[in-house]
Amino acid sequence: METKEISQAVVSRLPRYYRYLGDLKDEGVERISSQELSKLMHVTASQIRQDFNHFGGFGQQGYGYNTEYLYREIGKILGLDHAHNMILIGAGNLGSALVGYMNYRNRGFFFKAAFDVNPAKVGTDIAGIPVYAMDQMADVIEREKIDIVVLTIPKQEAVKVAQVLAATPIRAIWNFAHCDLAVPDSIQVENVHLSDSLMRLSYNIRQHEEGRRKKKQ
Amino acid sequence: METKEISQAVVSRLPRYYRYLGDLKDEGVERISSQELSKLMHVTASQIRQDFNHFGGFGQQGYGYNTEYLYREIGKILGLDHAHNMILIGAGNLGSALVGYMNYRNRGFFFKAAFDVNPAKVGTDIAGIPVYAMDQMADVIEREKIDIVVLTIPKQEAVKVAQVLAATPIRAIWNFAHCDLAVPDSIQVENVHLSDSLMRLSYNIRQHEEGRRKKKQ
Repeated sequence: METKEISQAVVSRLPRYYRYLGDLKDEGVERISSQELSKLMHVTASQIRQDFNHFGGFGQQGYGYNTEYLYREIGKILGLDHAHNMILIGAGNLGSALVGYMNYRNRGFFFKAAFDVNPAKVGTDIAGIPVYAMDQMADVIEREKIDIVVLTIPKQEAVKVAQVLAATPIRAIWNFAHCDLAVPDSIQVENVHLSDSLMRLSYNIRQHEEGRRKKKQ
Repeated sequence: METKEISQAVVSRLPRYYRYLGDLKDEGVERISSQELSKLMHVTASQIRQDFNHFGGFGQQGYGYNTEYLYREIGKILGLDHAHNMILIGAGNLGSALVGYMNYRNRGFFFKAAFDVNPAKVGTDIAGIPVYAMDQMADVIEREKIDIVVLTIPKQEAVKVAQVLAATPIRAIWNFAHCDLAVPDSIQVENVHLSDSLMRLSYNIRQHEEGRRKKKQ
């Protein structure tokens, strides 16, 4: 399948399709048209068809898409048919929450170990995974064939750890530190900047208030 | 200042400018040109100037922008010159991490209370804020003049809570539940779908691998 020139905007919409299709599948819906999906997801049917056409269209017939097939195919495009081994760096509250809270295992994401600078945490378990000292990172990455590293440490430390990770065979960093990371092109970085998200929210509140004030004038 | 027709793409870049300018200010850098900022942030200088022009350009002189002024002005655009009162719904690991981990107070975000369905948690404190029963939500929202609600509960509950919130005077929901929320237009919603983010990462790993395989052929 040719999926080379897909923009990140389209890519960003795929997980949402996957989420809705998973729910529909669980509810026993066998087929769904782009019109029905459009109503459910509040996007236009033409947007849906355009997005799907990037991946060959998934064979919509007159009576719609096969829900299970579409769910599975989008899962494959998202790489969810491969298992991913993960480690957590920073066994604090956020890190522990990520390991415990989300249902990664269902989708092939396996946390193998955590690492922390705090000697009191080393040797303990968080949410069922062992916590190691930072200097064991490279060994564990090799031994456990880790491909995704989850960074939940302050930004100064994150910059240093990223330099260490750059020399390992990992394939991606899921970065929760409040900074951008400089790593080789072979390592994909997905940033979750929570404070950026909160600021965007604050911006939208302000814009909405301003709009309301102008209407009143 | 006219900021009505700004696209969400531009808005999404503002917090990142704010973050870099904050660091520069803390390092004592008094002035910075769009070229210098461009190198630091890995975006083109023309993109920076275009983005800033949406907000009147911030008066770049021959010798660049005044760092402190630019930081403060972008902060105002982001609504950070107003205090925001917040509550957390769902005093689990992720919620506790959000209250404790991030340095909200510095930017005018104040957590006033948390709410949980678990009676064992009600009456306790998490990260310094009191945990109440769910049925006290509307009262606390009114009393504490809450404008932002942070939702860290499972999606079935989130949908129900959003219906309750729709009847309160809150202005925004920061939604960590794995679903989209149906609320009136007067309530801004900012979604943090962590599993979507992880799937995007998985997609980019797969694309990179495919690209490498094709090069080898």
